[in-house]
Amino acid sequence: MSQLEGAVALSEVKQKAGLAKQAAPLLAQLTTEQKNHALLYMAECLEKEAESIITANAEDLQRGRESGISTSLLDRLALNRQRIEAMAEGLRQIVTLPDPIGDTLEAFSRPNGLHIRKVRVPIGVIGIIYEARPNVTVDAAGLCLKTGNAVVLRGGSSALSSNKRIVEVLHQALEQTDVPPFALQLVLDPSRSSVDEMLKLNGLLDVLIPRGGASLIQNVVKNATVPVIETGAGICHTYLDETAQPEMALQIAINAKVQRPSVCNSMETLLVHRGFAARHLPMIAEQFIQQRVELRGDEETRALVAGISAATEEDWDTEYNDYILNVRIVGGLDEALEHIRLHGTMHSECIVTENTLHAARFLQEVDAAAVYHNASTRFTDGFEFGFGAEIGISTQKLHARGPMGLPALTSSKYCITGSGQIRG
Amino acid sequence: MSQLEGAVALSEVKQKAGLAKQAAPLLAQLTTEQKNHALLYMAECLEKEAESIITANAEDLQRGRESGISTSLLDRLALNRQRIEAMAEGLRQIVTLPDPIGDTLEAFSRPNGLHIRKVRVPIGVIGIIYEARPNVTVDAAGLCLKTGNAVVLRGGSSALSSNKRIVEVLHQALEQTDVPPFALQLVLDPSRSSVDEMLKLNGLLDVLIPRGGASLIQNVVKNATVPVIETGAGICHTYLDETAQPEMALQIAINAKVQRPSVCNSMETLLVHRGFAARHLPMIAEQFIQQRVELRGDEETRALVAGISAATEEDWDTEYNDYILNVRIVGGLDEALEHIRLHGTMHSECIVTENTLHAARFLQEVDAAAVYHNASTRFTDGFEFGFGAEIGISTQKLHARGPMGLPALTSSKYCITGSGQIRG
Repeated sequence: MSQLEGAVALSEVKQKAGLAKQAAPLLAQLTTEQKNHALLYMAECLEKEAESIITANAEDLQRGRESGISTSLLDRLALNRQRIEAMAEGLRQIVTLPDPIGDTLEAFSRPNGLHIRKVRVPIGVIGIIYEARPNVTVDAAGLCLKTGNAVVLRGGSSALSSNKRIVEVLHQALEQTDVPPFALQLVLDPSRSSVDEMLKLNGLLDVLIPRGGASLIQNVVKNATVPVIETGAGICHTYLDETAQPEMALQIAINAKVQRPSVCNSMETLLVHRGFAARHLPMIAEQFIQQRVELRGDEETRALVAGISAATEEDWDTEYNDYILNVRIVGGLDEALEHIRLHGTMHSECIVTENTLHAARFLQEVDAAAVYHNASTRFTDGFEFGFGAEIGISTQKLHARGPMGLPALTSSKYCITGSGQIRG
Repeated sequence: MSQLEGAVALSEVKQKAGLAKQAAPLLAQLTTEQKNHALLYMAECLEKEAESIITANAEDLQRGRESGISTSLLDRLALNRQRIEAMAEGLRQIVTLPDPIGDTLEAFSRPNGLHIRKVRVPIGVIGIIYEARPNVTVDAAGLCLKTGNAVVLRGGSSALSSNKRIVEVLHQALEQTDVPPFALQLVLDPSRSSVDEMLKLNGLLDVLIPRGGASLIQNVVKNATVPVIETGAGICHTYLDETAQPEMALQIAINAKVQRPSVCNSMETLLVHRGFAARHLPMIAEQFIQQRVELRGDEETRALVAGISAATEEDWDTEYNDYILNVRIVGGLDEALEHIRLHGTMHSECIVTENTLHAARFLQEVDAAAVYHNASTRFTDGFEFGFGAEIGISTQKLHARGPMGLPALTSSKYCITGSGQIRG
């Protein structure tokens, strides 16, 4: 069977995924020390080979400028010595994290004497589909290696020269370690068809993680038959309840919007209790305007805050990732909950209140990955949660939800020890 | 927006999934008492309405006979008072299980004073696609309700009359409880297109669980863009090592094959150490033959056991679910591990040995949902593991792996309590 298949020319994607699958059982048996040693050596080689990586990156930048990509994309694509050192530092940080593989998750005995232990194991082969940032190449390789997974990387075509050189360097590094270099695969085919093929690679890829903008993620979610961990989109709300402390409400709202508007856990819509709004919304709105935030309000908001535009129905469902904020006045908690149910994306939601019953109801009733009482939604983040790694923030409900630490890249198996038990 | 959409005629599947989605947030807020009360009342109404269910079932049986379906399918389809009582009893058993919803999974504080709690929540809306057995209708409804999930059922067309009547009875029961009846939806469209539509219902269905034969499951896995929990196929091995106790080896091997050959955790291939085989395989083979098991052996096996046919390459990759067993002699543990890696389906694998190092290596190195030392693979089962429920045995690595208890039907969310924290 395998001989026959070998005779047929496999696509690059299938061939590389097949190699990764062969590497997976070898990776699963590595000790923490072997994996950490490889990570440290990868970091060292990246720094040693920084010049050649910067040279390869220059090719990508040249092509990018010629094809007229935006300045911000060029910035994300650009590598220099400092950024390469940061990539190496990222690998060294992964070394310091506890290795989840082999952990006992549960252990119990049955009346018939069977002893059952649920232990953490790698997932197997992880496919990562991403865009222009070459640092994702190193980051994903490091996180997958630490969790004993083989990985198939498919980065954006604009970063192809950089990614190719980075993976060459990492392969050379791995050759000096106990990690088989073919555990790390980079797809070179820059065409859309290589992505399409990865999406359907059931049996070779165990999971796909898309990292990038909304359209990339939606393409993967809508077309993949391989299991996906969805990350990304967030239309997050902050609700200022009647009893919110005005200064705390102001600080949390401002922070949720302007501390970094471009990310998924920033606020897009501010919901304000009618009574609180009458007393404090003009002051809060002025602070937003001073921070150069464009406000779009419902009718009641516009009656209280002069000179702002009207929020359209579409605005409530828009993730701006920008200095724009919708503001809506609501009659109370129930109306706020209803708005969040209709317009939220189940990412991060916040209530600011001194009413403990309202806080408890909000935490209980809002269906989102992270629900906050009296704290900024900006805390939805693997590092802020203390996980020490940033694989992404899962916005789905299966397998992992919310900020993902290393355990999100693991599975489990049951090990059962008996003394001759048979089923009656 | 919703008005415009309402004006367009929705398909039955979309309409019912939409209703289930509306029910989901209501279900998530139910107390354990409310859910248990509804389950008990559903059980009572099923028993009270047994006659009308049996009448509806007679229509299905009549149609089935006319269309010439097999006796075994007719048997799985047939309902009588006893089977309906067993369905009701199943619901009462679900009442006795602990409610996982609301459990705190993790709780920790951050240096900035944020208190983070990870709690169990329902998944939302679960789609179940299954075949002829009407008891799955009741079982799935009960398991989903207990875990606070709305459910969209799509049973086999051969059981349509039975399922329709059962769901009518359950709806009437729920009307007398705090559970909104529209949390339970049954798709009536018997065409293939209703299944195809469910597979792509991202945004309305949170997960799909196929229950049935291999072709049903593979259709769902290969075509669904909604996340799937894959259950089912198992090509399970038992490896008798050199130092296995002969009597224990015999008992475990016989049990793994003949106690119930039709299920996924039964053995399809027996691997035998060369030295052990020389001493004991003829005796073991004779016992299998006495149990009416057809043996198919490799060359070495056939030299030791007269009159059995040769196993083909295809046989090693076949799930018989029948009184047929492949037998292969191997040189030792490594060869057994290699055979399992090439031909196993990562379901349940067993080693029988007195060599503790070999046992440890087998448990560590075999990549399967359940790995056994000195016990029958037939124990891979929710009830045998003490989970008290049988949602299925996950053969995938994401979200759940191995026998699934109620927690497999749950997700989690992070509840974060602060005192005004903002991100710096």
